Amino acid sequence: MSKLTDVPKRILIGRALRSDRLGETLLPKRIALPVFASDPLSSVAYAPGEVLLVLSIAGVSAYHFSPWIAVAVVVLMFTVVASYRQNVHAYPSGGGDYEVATTNLGPKAGLTVASALLVDYVLTVAVSIASGIENLGSAVPFVVEHKVLCATAVIVLLTLMNLRGVKESGKLFAIPTYVFVGGVFIMIAWGAFRGLVLGDTMSAPTADYHIKAEHQGLAGFALVFLLLRAFSSGCAALTGVEAISNGVPAFRKPKSKNAATTLALMGLLAVTMFCGIIALAMVTKVRMAEHPATDLIHNGSPVGSGYVQNPVISQVAEAVFGKGSFLFILLAAATALVLFLAANTAYNGFPLLGSILAQDRYLPRQLHTRGDRLAFSNGIVLLAGAATLLVFIYGADSTRLIQLYIVGVFVSFTLSQTGMVRHWNRHLAVEKDQAKRRHMIRSRAINAFGAFFTGLVLVVVLVTKFTHGAWVALLGMCIFYATMTAIRKHYDRVAEEIAAPEGPPSDDLVRPSRVHSVVLISKIHRPTLRALAYAKLMRSDTLEALTVNVDPAETKALREEWERRGIDVPLKVLDSPYREVTRPVIEYVKSLRKESPRDAVSVIIPEYVVGHWYEHLLHNQSALRLKGRLLFTPGVMVTSVPYQLQSSEAAKVRARKRQEWNAPGAVRRGPAQERAKEPSAKE
Amino acid sequence: MSKLTDVPKRILIGRALRSDRLGETLLPKRIALPVFASDPLSSVAYAPGEVLLVLSIAGVSAYHFSPWIAVAVVVLMFTVVASYRQNVHAYPSGGGDYEVATTNLGPKAGLTVASALLVDYVLTVAVSIASGIENLGSAVPFVVEHKVLCATAVIVLLTLMNLRGVKESGKLFAIPTYVFVGGVFIMIAWGAFRGLVLGDTMSAPTADYHIKAEHQGLAGFALVFLLLRAFSSGCAALTGVEAISNGVPAFRKPKSKNAATTLALMGLLAVTMFCGIIALAMVTKVRMAEHPATDLIHNGSPVGSGYVQNPVISQVAEAVFGKGSFLFILLAAATALVLFLAANTAYNGFPLLGSILAQDRYLPRQLHTRGDRLAFSNGIVLLAGAATLLVFIYGADSTRLIQLYIVGVFVSFTLSQTGMVRHWNRHLAVEKDQAKRRHMIRSRAINAFGAFFTGLVLVVVLVTKFTHGAWVALLGMCIFYATMTAIRKHYDRVAEEIAAPEGPPSDDLVRPSRVHSVVLISKIHRPTLRALAYAKLMRSDTLEALTVNVDPAETKALREEWERRGIDVPLKVLDSPYREVTRPVIEYVKSLRKESPRDAVSVIIPEYVVGHWYEHLLHNQSALRLKGRLLFTPGVMVTSVPYQLQSSEAAKVRARKRQEWNAPGAVRRGPAQERAKEPSAKE
Repeated sequence: MSKLTDVPKRILIGRALRSDRLGETLLPKRIALPVFASDPLSSVAYAPGEVLLVLSIAGVSAYHFSPWIAVAVVVLMFTVVASYRQNVHAYPSGGGDYEVATTNLGPKAGLTVASALLVDYVLTVAVSIASGIENLGSAVPFVVEHKVLCATAVIVLLTLMNLRGVKESGKLFAIPTYVFVGGVFIMIAWGAFRGLVLGDTMSAPTADYHIKAEHQGLAGFALVFLLLRAFSSGCAALTGVEAISNGVPAFRKPKSKNAATTLALMGLLAVTMFCGIIALAMVTKVRMAEHPATDLIHNGSPVGSGYVQNPVISQVAEAVFGKGSFLFILLAAATALVLFLAANTAYNGFPLLGSILAQDRYLPRQLHTRGDRLAFSNGIVLLAGAATLLVFIYGADSTRLIQLYIVGVFVSFTLSQTGMVRHWNRHLAVEKDQAKRRHMIRSRAINAFGAFFTGLVLVVVLVTKFTHGAWVALLGMCIFYATMTAIRKHYDRVAEEIAAPEGPPSDDLVRPSRVHSVVLISKIHRPTLRALAYAKLMRSDTLEALTVNVDPAETKALREEWERRGIDVPLKVLDSPYREVTRPVIEYVKSLRKESPRDAVSVIIPEYVVGHWYEHLLHNQSALRLKGRLLFTPGVMVTSVPYQLQSSEAAKVRARKRQEWNAPGAVRRGPAQERAKEPSAKE
Repeated sequence: MSKLTDVPKRILIGRALRSDRLGETLLPKRIALPVFASDPLSSVAYAPGEVLLVLSIAGVSAYHFSPWIAVAVVVLMFTVVASYRQNVHAYPSGGGDYEVATTNLGPKAGLTVASALLVDYVLTVAVSIASGIENLGSAVPFVVEHKVLCATAVIVLLTLMNLRGVKESGKLFAIPTYVFVGGVFIMIAWGAFRGLVLGDTMSAPTADYHIKAEHQGLAGFALVFLLLRAFSSGCAALTGVEAISNGVPAFRKPKSKNAATTLALMGLLAVTMFCGIIALAMVTKVRMAEHPATDLIHNGSPVGSGYVQNPVISQVAEAVFGKGSFLFILLAAATALVLFLAANTAYNGFPLLGSILAQDRYLPRQLHTRGDRLAFSNGIVLLAGAATLLVFIYGADSTRLIQLYIVGVFVSFTLSQTGMVRHWNRHLAVEKDQAKRRHMIRSRAINAFGAFFTGLVLVVVLVTKFTHGAWVALLGMCIFYATMTAIRKHYDRVAEEIAAPEGPPSDDLVRPSRVHSVVLISKIHRPTLRALAYAKLMRSDTLEALTVNVDPAETKALREEWERRGIDVPLKVLDSPYREVTRPVIEYVKSLRKESPRDAVSVIIPEYVVGHWYEHLLHNQSALRLKGRLLFTPGVMVTSVPYQLQSSEAAKVRARKRQEWNAPGAVRRGPAQERAKEPSAKE
C-alpha cells in the first residue's frame, strides 16, 4: 500500500493517523482539558459583556447588580458541573445527553435532546466565530469593519480543514487554550495588583461614556424581568460544559474519574475567569449598551452608527495592559483563536452526534459508518451552511446571535438531568449494598437539583428571550425533530416490509427453479469477451448473448464477426426501430419472465472502468440507465463485469488516499474498539 | 401500459406522439416551408436595418448604396439556394453540411463545419431573441426598457418548453410564419400602392432626423471597406438557409424534389421581403445610426442615451400602416413570434447535430441515442446557458450580437460547397451516361461558383468584422473543435485498448477455471433471502455468505438467526475493528483472488429499490460505495439482486412517463426508420 512518493509527505506531516492507532493516543487530563473545554472557557469572552449590555437598558446604575448575576451564574455552573460528574460516572461509554435521555426518558425525550444539540452546534459555530471576529477586531480594525466577510471566511476555512480531515491534535488545542487561560489569569492578577496594591486608576476606553437608559428607574416586576434576562445572557458561559460527558472514552484510565476531575477543573477555571472579568469591568468602568449608536453618549452626543463596541474582555485588557501593548495583542489573538477552536468543536460534534443518531435510524444509515468521508462531509457542509446563513442574517453580531443560543443547551441539560434522576431510581430499586445506595441517593439528589435548576433557567431563558430570537432556535429544533421522526418512520416501514417471515418461505421467497442468463453485447471487444467468459462460468440453465439492432450495418458486422470467431453462445438480435437501447432490453426481459414466471433472469453487462469523472461521462451511460431500469423489474439480477482500463489506476490511487483520511473528532471520540466493547446503552 | 388517469390528458393534448407514428406525419411543402424557414425568413426583421446602420457611418448620403447592397445579397442568396438544391439532391439522407464536408473533404473539415454550426446555433438563439425583443418593444415599450430581462425570460421559457419535450407541430410554425410573411407582403404592396398610385408621402418616425456622419466624405478604399461591411451585415439574411438540407427525410415523397422546391420558394420569399423592406425604408426615409445617442440628431441636438432605435421593419410598418394601427401591432407581434420560433429551431438543431457528432464519437456516445432525454437535456441546457451569457455580455443588443454571427454560417457554406465540388468530381470519374454527366457538370459548376462566392464572403466577413466581434465566434469554434478532437482521441484510445485480439485468446481473456460466489449479508430479511436463493441458482463452484462484524452484538444475533433458520450456506464473518464495511470486503475479495489467481469472484449484493430520490439517500449507500470499489478490483463480477419495495411503483410510473417524452426536433428530423434505411454516408 505504500509508495515512494508518500515518504516526503510522511516526513512533513507524520504518518496518517489511522483509527487502529488511536489506542495509543488516549488523552491525559492536561490535554483533555483544552480539547473539551475550549467551548465553555472561550465563552467568558462574550458572556460578561452580554450581562452588562442587558443591564445597561436600565442605565449604568443597574451595573451594580452584575456581581449578583455573576454569583447566580457561578452557582448554576457548579450545579451543572456537579450534575455532569454523576453522568460521567454512570455512563462511561460517552453517549452523552442523548443517550441518557433516550435510555431513561424514552426515545422522544432523546430525540428532543438530539434536536436541541444539533441546533446548538450550529449556534456554537455562528456565535463563537462572530465573537472571535469581534475580539480580533479590537486589535485589527479591518476585521471588524468587514465582520460578515471575515466570519464567512473563517467558516469556509474551518469547513475546508474539516473536509480535508485535518488530524485533530491535542497540542493544537492545548497551546492557544492555555495561552488564553494564562492571559486572562495574568490580566486578573495584574489588574488586582495594580488596583489594590499600586492603587492605580485603570480606565476602560469607554469609562467616560454615558449610557442613556432606555427605561430609567425600572422597578418591581420589570426590574426582575431585566435581571433575569441579564442572567439568561450570562448563562452563555455554560455552553459546552456537557462536551466532556460525550468524550469519556478518550480519557486515560481510570476514565470516569479523570473525566470528572477535568470537568471540575474546567468549571473552576470558567467561573474564576467569568467573575474576574466582571469585577475588572466594574473597576475599569466599562460601558456597554444594547444599541450603542444611540444609547452610548460621549461628550454629550450619541456615538453614532460608526462606533464599534469592543468586547468587555478587550476593553478590560486595554485598561489593564494598555492599548497596543504586547500582552493586549497576545490576549486578543489568543481569545480569537480559542473562539475559533470552540467553533471547530462543533465541526467534530455535529457529525459524531449524527453518527449516533444514524445508528438509531433517525438519520441516513451511512452517517453511521465510521470514517465514511462522504457522510461526514454532508454533515459538515450542512453545519457550515446553516452557520453561514445565521451569520448573514444576523450580520455576524454576537449579541444578536446569543439570543438564539442557550435554549438548546438548557433543553438538553434539563432532560439529561431528569433522565439521571430516573436512572438512579431504577438502580436504587435493585441495589442492596447500603454504601452504594447512599452514594446513589447522593447522586440522585445532585441530579434532581440540577434538573430543577436548569429547568428553571430554561423557563427563564424562554420567557425573557423568546421574542428576541429564542423562537428561531425552537423552530430549528422542531425542523430537526420532524425530519428525524420522518426518517425513522421510513426505516421502520421498510424494515417491516422486508422482514423475513418465520416458518416456510412465503410466495416471493420460493427459490426460482431456473435461471436464464443474458449477456448484453454492443461490439466484440475485450470487455464483452470477458463478460461472456464469466457468464459461461456461472452455468446457468440457458445462456444467450443479446444485442440491440440500432444500426443494421453494425449489427450485420457484429453477426459476421460472431460467426467468424466461432463464439459458442447464441446471439439474439432485438429490433429497435427508434434507436432505443433500454426499452427493447427491458421488454425482452419481461417477455422471458412472462414465459416462465418462476424463473429468474440474470442480465450480465460488460462495463468499462475508467479513472476520471470526465471519462466516466463518456462511457457506460446507457449501461447505467439500463441497470437502473432493470432493477425495477422483478425477478431480475443484474451483473456488472468490469473491465479495468489503464486510466483506472489513477482512481485506485485516489481511493487509497481517501481511505487514509481521518474523520474529524476522532481524537475526542476515543478508539472505536474501546467503544464497541462497552455495553450498549440500548437495553 | 395505459392507465385510466391518462384518458383526460389524451383528450386534452392528444395521444403522445411516439416515434413509431412519425411515418404518418411527413411534411407537405406548405408546412415544411414554415418549419424550416422561420430562421432565414425572420432574418429580414434585422438584416435591412444592419445594412443602413453600417452605411450611416458615412452619413445619410451613403444610404443610396443600399439598393446595390441589396442586389449583392440577392445574388448571394440565389447562389446559396442554387448550391443547396444540389446538396439536397445528392444527399437525400439529410446529413447536411457536416456530412458533406466529412465525406468529401475529410474529418477535419467536417469537424470545422460542426464547430461552426454549433457556434451558430448559440448565436441564432441570442440574435433572434434579442431582435424579437426589439420588435416587440416597438409596440410594447416595457419590453425594450428591460431588454436583458425579457430576453432571458424568453430563453428560459424556450428552454423549459424544450426540456419538457413539447411536441413540435407544423401548425405551430405555420400560423405565425404565414402571418409574418403575409404581413410583410401586404406592407410592401400597400406601401407601393400608397406611394405610386395615391401619391401619399409616407414618413418613418425618424424621417426628420439627421445623421452625424462619423466619417464624412469617405472615398476610395475606405468607402469600399464600408460597403463590404454593410454587405457582411446584410448577409445575416442568409443564416439558416442550410436547414432544409438537414431535413430532407422529413419531406413527403419525392423528398429531394420537394425539398429543392421548398428551398427555392424560401429564397424567393426572403429576397423579395428583404428588397421590399429596403425600398420602403428608402422611401419613408428611415434613419438608423450605429451610435444613435450621439450620431442621431433631432431638432439640432443628439437624441441622447434614452433614445430607443426601433427596427427598420417596425419603422416602415409605422409609416405605411400608421402607429398603433391593428396591422402595425399584428406585424410587430408576428415578427417577434417568428423570431422566437427561429430561436427555437436552434433548440432542435443543436441536439440533433450533437447526436450525429456522437455517432462519429466526437461527443459523448449517449447523445446518439434517440429520445434519450438526459442527453438532449444536457445539450439544451448548454445551448441556453451560452446564449444567455451572450445576451448578458452584449446587453441583448441585436446589432452587437450580429457582429459575431455569419462567420460560422459562411465557414459551413464554403466547406460544404467545396465538398460538393469534390463529390461531383468523384462521381464524374466513374459516370458513363452522358445525360447524367451533363447534369453533374452543371451541378458542379453551380457548387463551384457557390464555394467561390461564399468563400469570398467569408473573407469579407472576417476582414470587416474581425475586431467587431467575429473573433469571439472564431474562439468559440476553436473551443468546440478542440473539445471534440479530445473526446474522439479518448474514444479511439479506449477502442484500441479494448480491441479483441484475433487468434487464440490472450492472457487476460483466458476463461477463468472456477468461480467463487460471495453473498453480502447485513441482516436476514427478504432482500437477503432472495439474494441467497438467486445465488444458489447460479451453481458456482463455491458459495458463501459474508458479513462484516461492525457491531459484535448484532453479529452474534445474526449468527444465531442463521443457525435457527437452518440456512444451508456457510456464513463467514469478517472482522472490522473500525466499523468499516468496504475495506474488509475488498481485502477479503483480494485475498480470494490471491489464493487462486485463475478463478473469478462473484460478489452478490442485495439491494432495495425505492421510488423517490430522497428514499434513495436513505438506502444502499454502502452497497453503492462497495460496488464502486469492487469494479476496480480485477477478476470480480458484481451482481445486484434488487428487491422492489412498494414505493418503487411510483418510480415505475415516472419511468413510463419519461418514455413517452418526445425529443425536440423529431418532426424536422423525419422518421428514424427512414433514416436508418438510407445508405450510410460514411463510405
